[in-house]
Formats: sequence, C-alpha cells, structure tokens
Amino acid sequence: VHILIIGAAGMLGRKITAAILADPTIGGRTVTALSLVDLMAPQAPDWPAGRVSAKAADLGGSAAPAELIEDRPDVIIHLAAVVSADAEVHFDKGYRVNVDGTRALLEAVRQAGDAYCPRLVFASSLAVFGPPFPNRIPDDFAPAPRTSYGTQKVIAELLINDYSRKGMIDGVSLRLPTISIRPGKPNAAASGFFSGIIREPLIGQPAALPVPDTTRHWHASPRSAAGFFLHAAGMHTASLGHRRALNMPGLSATVAEQIEALRAVAGQGAIDLIRPAPDPLVADIVGGWGGDYEASRARALGFTTEGSFEDIIKVHIEDELGGALPRPAAHQAN
Amino acid sequence: VHILIIGAAGMLGRKITAAILADPTIGGRTVTALSLVDLMAPQAPDWPAGRVSAKAADLGGSAAPAELIEDRPDVIIHLAAVVSADAEVHFDKGYRVNVDGTRALLEAVRQAGDAYCPRLVFASSLAVFGPPFPNRIPDDFAPAPRTSYGTQKVIAELLINDYSRKGMIDGVSLRLPTISIRPGKPNAAASGFFSGIIREPLIGQPAALPVPDTTRHWHASPRSAAGFFLHAAGMHTASLGHRRALNMPGLSATVAEQIEALRAVAGQGAIDLIRPAPDPLVADIVGGWGGDYEASRARALGFTTEGSFEDIIKVHIEDELGGALPRPAAHQAN
Repeated sequence: VHILIIGAAGMLGRKITAAILADPTIGGRTVTALSLVDLMAPQAPDWPAGRVSAKAADLGGSAAPAELIEDRPDVIIHLAAVVSADAEVHFDKGYRVNVDGTRALLEAVRQAGDAYCPRLVFASSLAVFGPPFPNRIPDDFAPAPRTSYGTQKVIAELLINDYSRKGMIDGVSLRLPTISIRPGKPNAAASGFFSGIIREPLIGQPAALPVPDTTRHWHASPRSAAGFFLHAAGMHTASLGHRRALNMPGLSATVAEQIEALRAVAGQGAIDLIRPAPDPLVADIVGGWGGDYEASRARALGFTTEGSFEDIIKVHIEDELGGALPRPAAHQAN
Repeated sequence: VHILIIGAAGMLGRKITAAILADPTIGGRTVTALSLVDLMAPQAPDWPAGRVSAKAADLGGSAAPAELIEDRPDVIIHLAAVVSADAEVHFDKGYRVNVDGTRALLEAVRQAGDAYCPRLVFASSLAVFGPPFPNRIPDDFAPAPRTSYGTQKVIAELLINDYSRKGMIDGVSLRLPTISIRPGKPNAAASGFFSGIIREPLIGQPAALPVPDTTRHWHASPRSAAGFFLHAAGMHTASLGHRRALNMPGLSATVAEQIEALRAVAGQGAIDLIRPAPDPLVADIVGGWGGDYEASRARALGFTTEGSFEDIIKVHIEDELGGALPRPAAHQAN
C-alpha cells in the first residue's frame, strides 16, 4: 500500500506518519511507500522497511494535485487546510485552499483515467455544525456552520460524497473533535485553553482559563486522531452508503471534569496553576460549539477513542513527556 | 425597486415576470425596473409603468455576473440552473453553472464595492435531501443529496449563507416543491407524470401513470412558486439568522388523492384517461424523494400555498385554460 499524506508537516500529519512507521499495516495490508507533502517539504523520516518521499506543494496551486497523484497512491490522507481563524479573516485564501484545493484534488483523481479510484480520507471538522444544539448531538444533525472554515469543510464533504457516489473516488470525511492535549506551545486559537489548562500545569507552568468551568467540550487525543485516519484508510466503505462524513467519537467533558482528571493524575499542585481569566470573546466563540456527540455510526464502524479525560492526560504523558511527569509542579510557580 | 431575474425565460421566470407586471410592488415598495436575463435573451414584455431590459448571458461565462449587476439591481432572483437529469449526465456542466456560476455571481456582488448588498433569492430544491426520510420531514432535516444537482444546490446554499453572514449579500434560498401542474407539453423528467396525470386528462388527452397510486409527493402550483419568490424578495431577513435556506410549503398528496381531486373537478371521464403503465426506473427515482415536509419556518415567515389538490387544479384551470375546462373529457379519447 502506498500512502500519500497532504499536509504532512502539521501536528496530525506527523502523528499519522509516526503511527505508520511504528506499525506499517493498513486494513491488513503492508504499507510499502509513503509520500509526504506540505507547503514546505516535510522532514523525511528514516524508514528502512519502505520508500519515503517528501516534497513541497500548494494544494491551491494549479498543477499540484495532478503531480501529487502521478504515481497513483492507494490511499490519500488529506489534511491540508487553512485553519478556522485564518479562513475567517482571509476569505479568499480559505476558499482557495479548503474548497478549490480539495476540488482540484478530486478532479485530478477523476481525470487520471485507468480506473484509478483511491481511498481518500479527508480531515473535516465538527465546525460543520452550529447552534442551537441539543444536549447530545445526533449523527444526522444538520450542518449549519458559523464560520467560513466550517462552510468550506461541509462543501468539501459534499464534493467527496458526490465524487464517491459517481465512483470517481472512494472517500471518507472524518469530522474531528478538538485534539486534546495538543502538544507544543500555547497558541492563539480560541480552543487553545482546553489543552493549555492541562499541558502547562503538567510541566509546572501557569495556565489561564478564559471560560466558566461548566463549559462542556468534545475531546480526542492526538493518538486517537491518528488512529481515526488509519482506521478509515483501511476499512470497508460499502456500508457507508452515500453518507461518507462521520462524526468521530470523543470524550465529552466539562472544564471542571478536565480539572478533576488533572488533580487525579498530577495532584493539587497542578490545579493551583490554573488561573481564572474570564474572556467574553473566547466564551462566546466556544459557546457556539457542541460539547457532546453520539458518534454511534463511527463507533459501530470501529472507530475508538479514550474513555475518560484521565486517559487523555495519560496519553499525553506517554507520548509527549516520556512516560512520566517532570518533578511535581511547584506551588510557587510564577 | 429594480429586480434582476437570471433564468427569466424558463417557466418560473415567466410566471414571476408576469406576477410583477400584474402587481409591481415588493415589500410595499414599487417596482420600477426589471432586467430579464437568460442564455437566450427573453422576450421583453410591454410595460408602460416601468423600465424593462432583456439580454442574453451565460452565468457560467467569465464576465457575465459583473455585467449583470452593473446597474445595481436591488433584488436578484437567481433561477439559472442545469436541471437534475442534465447535471447527472453532464457532471462538469452542472458544477460549472450550478456551483461556479452562483459563486461568480456572489463574488461579483462582493467585488462591486460601494456597500452594495442586494437581496438575492435563490431557487434551491428539496433535492438537497435524500432517503431515508421520516414520515414528515422537519425543517432541520440534514441535507444528504442523491444527485449531483442536489449536491450543487446545497453547496450554493452554503455559499449564500456564508456570504450573507459576512454581510456581502442578503440571501435567501428557497427549496422548492415539485411544481404542479406544470404547464406545457409532457416532458421526460421523472417527475413529469405528477403534472401529466392531471394536465392531459383535463384537455381530453390520455396520460400514463408509472408509479403506484400510494406514492406521496409534495406539490405547489406555479402561481404559488412565483409568490414564494416575490415574498422572499420583500420580506425582512433579520429573523432568518444564519439559516437562510427555507423548505417551501406545499401540499402533500398521494397519487390517489390527486386522482380523487381530478374526479371532483372534472368527473369520471377525466379519470378514465389515466392508464397505469408501471415503470420501475421512475418508481425507483421517485422513491428517493420526500413526500411531506413540515415547512413551519417558511409558513411562520408568511409563505403560503394551496390547501388542497383541488385548489392546485383550479389554479391550473384559471391560469392555463382560461378559467374553464374545455368540453368534457370524452370516454372514447384515443
């Protein structure tokens, strides 16, 4: 199996790449080649067991998609996107990459001829939904995005459904939960604090909490998210029918529940590092997101994730902190 | 008020034009100018009370949309489309007109500058939905189209929502029922018989019925459909929020109920002209359509339609047959 990852240099792309190298099988078949693509060429990992290529390409560029599929990858994992805040500010750029880029990729596959019909696994988002929400959001809840990003993701899903229905591609769209705990530095994303209030205290750093602790959200670890893509790459798609967009499973937790899980794993000292810092703008944005999804279709199809927020914290400690906490978080930090 | 109708030469465009000429007010304001556009220039009606222009333009062409809005119409009624069967066979043409054409129109408005933000009333379709259906389809039922046409209509709706949310246009998308009774000759559309089994017997001609008479469908007269557009052109849109696509009201009737209405209006002689001619292909296509919609949002917003299929037949007799039936349909027709 030859896998092409578009958007391979991002956090998720690197997690998926690492997961493939650690266990190079997809749906019971061996992965023998990996093509990594991003705006700047990703670092090509050392992989004696298979062939790796890494190159730079802009999915929004004119010739890019045809070149990317020149050697007919069996599986295309499509992560390339202009992210939410960026797409909201840069209207044209968002449509160019998130809609036109995806459509150009689908067209390149369609125009390739020789009955080429790869599996496409597309990174969609639960941002396709908008309020008002029921307490628990069912799988067939109608998309009503509140952002250009969410709009662009639904449009891409619709294109993938239609091209798949026509037999031009074999697509699956994964509507991802918020990835928690996101590794790395704090960032400016409105959702950043969901990771920050755990990630920073675990290493003895303070973290700001901009929303009430009753705020409920839908989480999956980076390890789970990588697993979603690899499961989708190998699964049978016949049972999907014409509805190829799936709400991915996650863990529904309030901020208070996140904090209790942190206490259980890292003690009161970690909790003391979380400082309430109400931010009405962030609270307003976050209030437009759903906090609990049924995701029963995806679970029935074999997608799995963590069962508790403690598990999510443990995954972070294993995958990002070498399996153990640094010295106990100090009360006097800052 | 200056109204631009794109796709003005079609049945619906002509009905809307005639309705405006008969009563040139929109939302309490007087219509003073009418611009009619289609692939071939529509016939410009004689209208002493206002200014009429008629020209040819292809919405899928490159410069067309900017030219169409050069004199800044206050209301744009967008009916131009590659229809269902055509879009299913001619994949590129469908996307070019139904998606790219609509997007080009939105972009032309956005790029016009000077705070130009016209009302756009877009002809969408209940083909945005796909089975399985509940008995009665709620307003927030999730679009899951089974055709490229339906896909293209949802994409256009999403674009109109996003451009409206951004204040670039003031859009409303009308998901139209099947127009019954469609005037004119029988055509090859899978839905054609819903009109044919009434229209032909009313003038003493035989008509084929390809589906079981238990088949339930959602109807509105051409007069009602024209009324939907004129109501949407003048209504307040603030209460729509970010959900600017509306399921239009209609009349839910089984074929048997249609036939009983025909009997009440035109007698047994007309019924005898309907010949069962089962067609599994048509039955299969029609089976993929919903037959009953709540449409409560649209009704609350003031959209109205017929209350019985008899009323729909009477509208046809008034608007197409000069207000009276021709001589009683003869038993010996054929």
